Parts: sequence; C-alpha cells; structure tokens
Amino acid sequence: MGTGRLEAFSDGVIAIIITIMVLEMKVPHSDSLVSLLPILPVFISYVLSFVNVAIYWNNHHHIIQAAETINAPVMWANIHLLFWISLFPFVTGWMGENHFATWPVVLYGVVSFMAGVAYYILAKCLIKLHGKRSTLVAALGRDKKGKISVIIYASGILLSFVHPWLGLAMYFAVATMWFIPDPRIESKLVEKEAIQKQENG
Amino acid sequence: MGTGRLEAFSDGVIAIIITIMVLEMKVPHSDSLVSLLPILPVFISYVLSFVNVAIYWNNHHHIIQAAETINAPVMWANIHLLFWISLFPFVTGWMGENHFATWPVVLYGVVSFMAGVAYYILAKCLIKLHGKRSTLVAALGRDKKGKISVIIYASGILLSFVHPWLGLAMYFAVATMWFIPDPRIESKLVEKEAIQKQENG
Amino acid sequence: MGTGRLEAFSDGVIAIIITIMVLEMKVPHSDSLVSLLPILPVFISYVLSFVNVAIYWNNHHHIIQAAETINAPVMWANIHLLFWISLFPFVTGWMGENHFATWPVVLYGVVSFMAGVAYYILAKCLIKLHGKRSTLVAALGRDKKGKISVIIYASGILLSFVHPWLGLAMYFAVATMWFIPDPRIESKLVEKEAIQKQENG
Amino acid sequence: MGTGRLEAFSDGVIAIIITIMVLEMKVPHSDSLVSLLPILPVFISYVLSFVNVAIYWNNHHHIIQAAETINAPVMWANIHLLFWISLFPFVTGWMGENHFATWPVVLYGVVSFMAGVAYYILAKCLIKLHGKRSTLVAALGRDKKGKISVIIYASGILLSFVHPWLGLAMYFAVATMWFIPDPRIESKLVEKEAIQKQENG
Repeated sequence: MGTGRLEAFSDGVIAIIITIMVLEMKVPHSDSLVSLLPILPVFISYVLSFVNVAIYWNNHHHIIQAAETINAPVMWANIHLLFWISLFPFVTGWMGENHFATWPVVLYGVVSFMAGVAYYILAKCLIKLHGKRSTLVAALGRDKKGKISVIIYASGILLSFVHPWLGLAMYFAVATMWFIPDPRIESKLVEKEAIQKQENG
Repeated sequence: MGTGRLEAFSDGVIAIIITIMVLEMKVPHSDSLVSLLPILPVFISYVLSFVNVAIYWNNHHHIIQAAETINAPVMWANIHLLFWISLFPFVTGWMGENHFATWPVVLYGVVSFMAGVAYYILAKCLIKLHGKRSTLVAALGRDKKGKISVIIYASGILLSFVHPWLGLAMYFAVATMWFIPDPRIESKLVEKEAIQKQENG
Repeated sequence: MGTGRLEAFSDGVIAIIITIMVLEMKVPHSDSLVSLLPILPVFISYVLSFVNVAIYWNNHHHIIQAAETINAPVMWANIHLLFWISLFPFVTGWMGENHFATWPVVLYGVVSFMAGVAYYILAKCLIKLHGKRSTLVAALGRDKKGKISVIIYASGILLSFVHPWLGLAMYFAVATMWFIPDPRIESKLVEKEAIQKQENG
Repeated sequence: MGTGRLEAFSDGVIAIIITIMVLEMKVPHSDSLVSLLPILPVFISYVLSFVNVAIYWNNHHHIIQAAETINAPVMWANIHLLFWISLFPFVTGWMGENHFATWPVVLYGVVSFMAGVAYYILAKCLIKLHGKRSTLVAALGRDKKGKISVIIYASGILLSFVHPWLGLAMYFAVATMWFIPDPRIESKLVEKEAIQKQENG
C-alpha cells in the first residue's frame, strides 16, 4: 500500500479541523468594541490551537513522506491520531468560553497529551514496519521533541490544578519549542532527496 | 472515464463528514467537570461514527483503487453511498443528545444499514462494469464482511426495540469486526501490484 | 495556465457545500419519532440540493476536463458559478424550515436559475477561449440540457406563485432529467480518449 | 522540500474558509420576503469576503507555483497568512449582523490589512529563498497591487471613523482593482511555461 491515500485524507481532515475551529468564536450581537472582550479568551485559545494543529500537520507530513509503505496498524494509528486532533475545536471552545478555568484547561491538556501519545504510537508503528531499512523513519520516530512535548503536557495538566495559567504557559511553551526549526531532520531530508535523485538519474 | 476524479471527490466529502461531526458536541457553558456529563453520550456516539466513517473511507478507497474505469451507474451509485454517509452527523447528534433512546438508536441503525446497502450496490455496479476482466474487483465485491455487516445492522435495528443497548452493541460489533485486517484482500493487492510492476518493467 | 488548479479548488468547494448542507437539519431535542416530522421538509430539500450539487460537480468536471487551457475570464466565470452554488445550503434550509412556502421556493428557484446561468457563462467563456480548436468543448458548451434546465427553472419560479408545489415539481423534474445519461457526450469523450491514446502511442 | 504539500494544504484551507462563511447567513424562521431584509447586509459582506478570499486563492496559487522550493520560514509565513484569512468568516458575520456599524467595519479592515501584510511577508520570504535565481518570484513579490491594497486598507480603516460606508467603499475598491487582469504577470507565466517546455522537449 502506498502512502499517497493516507497523506491526502489526513491533509484534508487536518485542513478542515484547523478551519472549523473559527466557528467556535461566536459573532457578538452588539457592534461595540467592548462586545469583543468576552471573545478575547476564545481568540487566544484559537491562536494556540491553530498553531498546534499546524505543527501536527507539519510533523505528520514529514514522517509520512519519509515512509515508503504503510500497513493496517499504521492506518489505524493514523486514524487514532486524527481522532484526538479532531477534538481540538471542542476543547478550544470550552477553554475559551470559560476564560481559562481549571477543568477546561486540564481537558485541553489531556487532548494535547493524547494527540502527542497517538503521534508517538504512529511513529512506533512506522518504525516497526520499516525496521532498519529506513534510517530516516527511525530518526524521525526517535525524535526527542515529540517525547518532551508529551512530558511538558503531562506536567501542564498537573500544574493547572495549582493555577490554570501555569498549565496554559506549559502548552504555549510546547508550541514555541516547535517553531525553532530542527537542523538535524532538515539535513536528513536533503540527504534523502539527494540519494533519490542519484538513484533516478 | 478514469477513477481519479471520483476518488478525490469522495475522499473530500468523507473527510468533511468525519470532521464536522465534532460540531454536534456543543460546548457547555459551565466550566465544571460535571457539565461534561451530558456530552458523554454524544462523545460515545461520536467515537462510533468516527470509526464507522473511517472504515467506509478505507473500504471505498480499496474498491475504487482496484477498479480500472467507471461509468454513469457507478458514479451515481457512489453519490448514493455518499448521501447515506452524509447523514451520520445528524443521527450521531440525535442518538447522543437523547442518551441512546430507542428511536434515535433505530434511526442510527437504519442509516448504517442503508450505507451498507449503498456500498453493496456500488460494488455490484463495479463488478458488472468490469465483468470477469478483473478478479480483484470481483473479490472485493463478493466481500463477505460487507454482507455480514448489513445483516448485523438489520438485527441491531430489531433488537433496539427490545432494548436500545442491544442494538448499540450490534453496531459496535460491526465496527470491531472491521478492525481485524483481511489477509485475503491484502495478499490480492500485493499480487496486483506485482503484476502491474511486471507489466511496466 | 493549466486546468489542474481550477479543478482541484472547485472540487474542494463543491465537496464542502454538498456536505455542510446536512448541518441545516437541526437535531431535535426530543427522542420521539414524531419529533422528526418537522425535519422531514428539510430532509426533502436536502435530498433535492444534494442531487443538484452532485449534478453540478459532474457537469463541471466534464467541461473542465474537456478544456485544455484557462484564462482570467474563465477563472472568474468559475468563481461566479461557485458563488451561486455556495448559496444552496442557505436556500435549502430556508425552504425546508418553512415547509415549502411560496417565497422560499421562489428563492430556491432563483439560486438554481442563477447557477444555471453561471454555468452557461462559464461554458461560453471556455468556447470563446478554445474557438474551433476543440470540438468537444463546443459540444459540451452547446449542451441542450443546460439551456432547458434554465428555462424550466424560470417557469418553476413563475409557477411557484400559483402554488409552491408546482415550482418544486419543476425543480425535481430538472434533477431527474440529468439522471438519464447523455450517450452523445459519453461517445465524444470515448472518441477524445482514443485520439489522445493514438497521439501518445 | 517541494511546494506540492504547501499548495494542497493551503488550497484545502482556503476552499473551506470560502465555503463556511455561508453559515454566517442564519436561515430566518419566517417565510416572508421581508424576513430576508435583515440578512441583506450579511449577504453583502458575504459577497465582499467571497471575492476577497477568491483573490487570495488566486494570488497565493500564482506565487507558490512560481516558487521552486520552500523552507521553514516560508512554511510559517504561509501558516501566518492562512491564520488571517481564517478570520474572514468571523468579521464577515460581525460586520453583516451589525449593518456596517463603525467598529465591525474597522475590524474587517484590520483583518484585510493584516492578511495583506502576511501576504507581503510570504512574498519576501520566497524572494529571500530564491534570490536572483528566479526572476518570476521576484516579479510577483515586487507586485505593486499587493502594496497598494495594503495602503488602501489602512486608509479605509481610518475613513471608517468618519463614516463606515467610506471604509467599505475602500474595501470594495481593492476587490474591484484585482478583477482587472495583470498582463505583465500572465506574459511572464507564459514565458516560463515556454522555457520549461523547451527544457523538457
């Protein structure tokens, strides 16, 4: 089985999730600038989720593109990941509408945590399938950032019980961490491309 | 007519259906953990529908990819299948919001049953078009799992009148059945790929 | 400019329109079978619109695939067509919620009529660009069914003022007319394919 | 990294944004023609936003297609652009529902302005990456229309405080300006295509 179908379907689902989240920002009925104030927290959680889902799209694309083939476990691990990402619109709305109260912030962390775990499982399934054939898949799968994210999310959930803003700070920290490009992977990808060109040419 | 256009359009529609279902989980206005309780049944039916639609995407992709060409009847059989799948968000919301009451569970079964029948009609149209030319299409079309699903859905509808949880158990049984990979089809696909490579190389 | 980008974008927009229409069927809060009755008219108009949008997708794909190139007027004629199709969810909801009252049925007809006109303009722009080079584009553009549809829609709008069901009957008549495959176009497409194979082979 | 993944994802997101905006036009419960009147302003802002997003899709596609490669800054500049475009459904709904009151018109201008700035940043990132290698990217990036749009949006925001209709007139002026095709870019694209054909043939 090729990776094309998985990639196209996942891209479609992620594109829809990132876009329908905006529907959680309910249009206020008043035209005053003040009427936007209650939406501000929803806007902030929208920004956080937009960045998070964009990071997942980016990482997902990287790891699937590095893969050469997929099997049934990979396919279901992928559906599992999409399931947790699909819950972002709900937790974004709940956290925003309740102005970052404890439980909504905790649930946001739980969904982020589970999405991170699902990504880890997907990576493991890909590594198992490719074995030592593909060093790239192994490199991406062993990726430290993914593991660190999951740990920060877990500590964020616990810290939310002290004060929800501490948890929130953890979630923003993860998003910021991903902005910094990873030279190791980029160089691996350039390497792979060079090898492929050599093989074809 | 090639299969590309049908595949891309169906993938798009199915990706949107699987994602907008999450909008049926209305964000509660309170920030307490208890306020999530009424959403739990909607969440459970969301999980069931997410898996169901993912299975349809998977099967649909398999059978269309095995096909070499389409005609007008196939195209309309496909639109017919997409129509029934498009009703999943509605029945998911109704069943969840009414905590698995009898009629909503029955209607969920009816839509699942009709989607199964529509898939069967699509398979029949593809077999008729390909005749004995393609053993793969015939193999997929004769697929036992599809027929068994339809029968279990029908019995689920009837059992819902005894107790809706019996019907629900039937629906979950079908979803579980599809998780177990089908070695027969996978081997056929590998075979086909090998033949295609031989023909090209 | 190639047609690929136009095709992919239009396919995406049409796939989303056909799917979000289902959101106009609001989930009833009661679990009785009777509570579905007020939704029945919305369901009927949903079925009509689903078929209509599916027909537009089919025709749009045919004519764009027959084209070899596009220019700015074609691109804007296409956006114009997508605009009118995008209003189907609104008129579907309005017509269904008001149980096929006069004005909603009239507006449904107006949007159907304008979409038909927009399709005609798109066809004209394609013919003007391709000139006599492509007999296929000319054949599709001269298509009688398109013109007849627009005339039936116009008469449907007028008949709605006598009784809305008369207008509705006209709209269903157009949808039914498109179900019957057009042997003339299919043979032209087969012909074109044969010529292309000859040129390549 | 190739441009294919960026193009497909952006096309998907933009197609969804242009389509879900129609959901901001809430279906009226009455069936009278008068009940459509309060929706008229929402319809007008829907038309404006539909054209605006269509223009962004068009321009985005042009500049990405002209690019040969992307890097991390381009990817994030693209996500940043999609973020501002994703706010169009919200500002469209707010402006329409409040009948073009001052603040909603100002916010519409701010989002339009920021989207214009984000497009400018994306163009700059692409130029920086391609350097003098690609004259086409440079030509598109230096594009005057983009800069003029941003200036008109800024003046539209200020004029909205005098009277919101003045601001609105500015926004419509920008949309109209983009309808006039740019012969300079079209000829460059034809040129590029010719060169590519020469290289391949």
